[in-house]
Amino acid sequence: MSRVFNFSAGPAAIPEPVLKQAQVELLDFRGTGMSVMEMSHRGKVFTDVAREVVSDFRGLLGIPANYKVLFLQGGGKGEFSIVPLNLLRGKKKADYVNTGHWSAGAIKEASKYCEVNVAASSEVRKFTYIPRQQDWRLSSDAAYVHICTNETIHGVEYFWTPETGQVPLVADASSHILSRPMDVARYGCIYGGAQKNIGPSGLTFVIVREDLLGGAHPWTPSVFDYTQQDNNDWMLNTPPTFAVYLAGLTFKWLAAQGGLAGMERVNVQKAECLYGCIDNSAGFYLNTIAKEDRSRMNVPFFLKDEKLNALFLEESLAAGLAGLKGHKAVGGMRASIYNAVSLEGVQALVDFMNAFAKRHG
Amino acid sequence: MSRVFNFSAGPAAIPEPVLKQAQVELLDFRGTGMSVMEMSHRGKVFTDVAREVVSDFRGLLGIPANYKVLFLQGGGKGEFSIVPLNLLRGKKKADYVNTGHWSAGAIKEASKYCEVNVAASSEVRKFTYIPRQQDWRLSSDAAYVHICTNETIHGVEYFWTPETGQVPLVADASSHILSRPMDVARYGCIYGGAQKNIGPSGLTFVIVREDLLGGAHPWTPSVFDYTQQDNNDWMLNTPPTFAVYLAGLTFKWLAAQGGLAGMERVNVQKAECLYGCIDNSAGFYLNTIAKEDRSRMNVPFFLKDEKLNALFLEESLAAGLAGLKGHKAVGGMRASIYNAVSLEGVQALVDFMNAFAKRHG
Repeated sequence: MSRVFNFSAGPAAIPEPVLKQAQVELLDFRGTGMSVMEMSHRGKVFTDVAREVVSDFRGLLGIPANYKVLFLQGGGKGEFSIVPLNLLRGKKKADYVNTGHWSAGAIKEASKYCEVNVAASSEVRKFTYIPRQQDWRLSSDAAYVHICTNETIHGVEYFWTPETGQVPLVADASSHILSRPMDVARYGCIYGGAQKNIGPSGLTFVIVREDLLGGAHPWTPSVFDYTQQDNNDWMLNTPPTFAVYLAGLTFKWLAAQGGLAGMERVNVQKAECLYGCIDNSAGFYLNTIAKEDRSRMNVPFFLKDEKLNALFLEESLAAGLAGLKGHKAVGGMRASIYNAVSLEGVQALVDFMNAFAKRHG
Repeated sequence: MSRVFNFSAGPAAIPEPVLKQAQVELLDFRGTGMSVMEMSHRGKVFTDVAREVVSDFRGLLGIPANYKVLFLQGGGKGEFSIVPLNLLRGKKKADYVNTGHWSAGAIKEASKYCEVNVAASSEVRKFTYIPRQQDWRLSSDAAYVHICTNETIHGVEYFWTPETGQVPLVADASSHILSRPMDVARYGCIYGGAQKNIGPSGLTFVIVREDLLGGAHPWTPSVFDYTQQDNNDWMLNTPPTFAVYLAGLTFKWLAAQGGLAGMERVNVQKAECLYGCIDNSAGFYLNTIAKEDRSRMNVPFFLKDEKLNALFLEESLAAGLAGLKGHKAVGGMRASIYNAVSLEGVQALVDFMNAFAKRHG
């Protein structure tokens, strides 16, 4: 069939030009007579790719020179363990803010390694907002403060950067990285899985301030020791080379869209279009998130009449709109509108939603 | 250019029919209108893929029902940490046999977690053979005995299975898995990186006997806890879906080659052809490994006149034979002749080597 509009939460849509280029050169990369996934990660052809990937990622985000960039494995969930193993640096406590499913997962995992102080939580109001900083109770002796800057399942996003003084701020930015500019210098570490805005699953990015290196717990698996990986240009072990290559193609595509400022303009339009449809549906569709905290990437919504859920999914799929089923933790629907989902795709969704509401309202 | 014969040690050659099928369906997998790498790992289309991958892998190796199969991330080197974290099960000691670069790496990493008894080592003879079992000094209180069944760099391979009684035998089989049948029931755990005989880098396989589960150290990162991953059909976190899919295509290709028995017949021919060329070169080429321990997958060799190394590499590449430079740890040349390297490819290499020797001998 022809390509659908893909609203999957992750693994998620990849820009079509990226897939098409990968398709063309899948059996012969840069005249080598082999696929990029068949060559040594230590040979010149691939190390050139890797160097460009880092340099383009740095360029897009404006990563300062005193930050290291690593491309690893294990995903965001792997980092839930790897972050405390690397960043506790002998301390016994870390602050975590709980804003949904992924924050909670990070807290649970960190509790294996240290005392976790939950500095703030929106759980009592079902994770429908981001707690304001004046309500946070930070510890003076925390090794770091951890936040999840976009909750893929609950659909809340930080549009402000917490102030944590001398204590490094650590962010799981899996599901909004590269959707808009970020002031990297405000963070000690930013990490995430690649499978939303960067590439296929199986690739993890880590941006870490260099003064935080060198203190990994001795039990940290070497391949997840930021310092050891940095000393080896993140090739202490064989990286997922094909995923790295696809990330590189995505970075080039992003630059051609006007970089992160250009991407943000489109993402704002997409979010306004979809939330507008929901808010103007006279209650047929519902999104319960505080307006100022609504994620631009993941839009969970409910049909007032939940008996229509199955029909909505069936008819939307038939209309070429895929991946709209909500996560089981919250139910309902969810449209993930990452970078690779075009404004045209969101408009098609909104057109469908309006027509569906008209038929069944 | 046209496809080369690819002797890379890993990432390595992938069967051309696998790449061609991946190319055809890269933008639209099974009529979904999206790439296999763009869809949820929890949706029916991908879980069908995953189930088939496990079932085909089980079928090829004849994995008994009381063994679990997991596809994880982190590579063989990641497993160097993950194995002790999972399999020490409260014990304080493990036995390791040192047969080369990768055994030594596993020993170094395990030493972070327990007392390592090096039960045997071939280091004094430069890792040119596999120590016979009568010379091993196993501990009665070891949690497991660890071996590397094929040393990718040094080029030695076990063609026999050690007897370790009640102590589970653990094997890093990264670089010979699926090249020949294995009696899985003789092992407690077999693991490896996928990037030699299975697929692209970034995918790790683990075969583990079910009675060894349940005893992971509390500090084991959840995504690397065999039991937690098994309880979640190895989808506690997002797996590297595209790599899993490619592994599945490779397993189908392998079955079409007559399975592991058929593959072994070809691999024996390939190895005989290449070692024969070396042994019959009147000393122009040299392989120093004990004949009965010579790897069928990785064939390191030296030119008697090392001043010819650069010319050999240059001319072989011009002849369409890529990836022949030896690992820096041993120098010289290395031809990795994994499953995806055809007999025709090995014959082309041998023809080149004979002609080169004639010109320069």
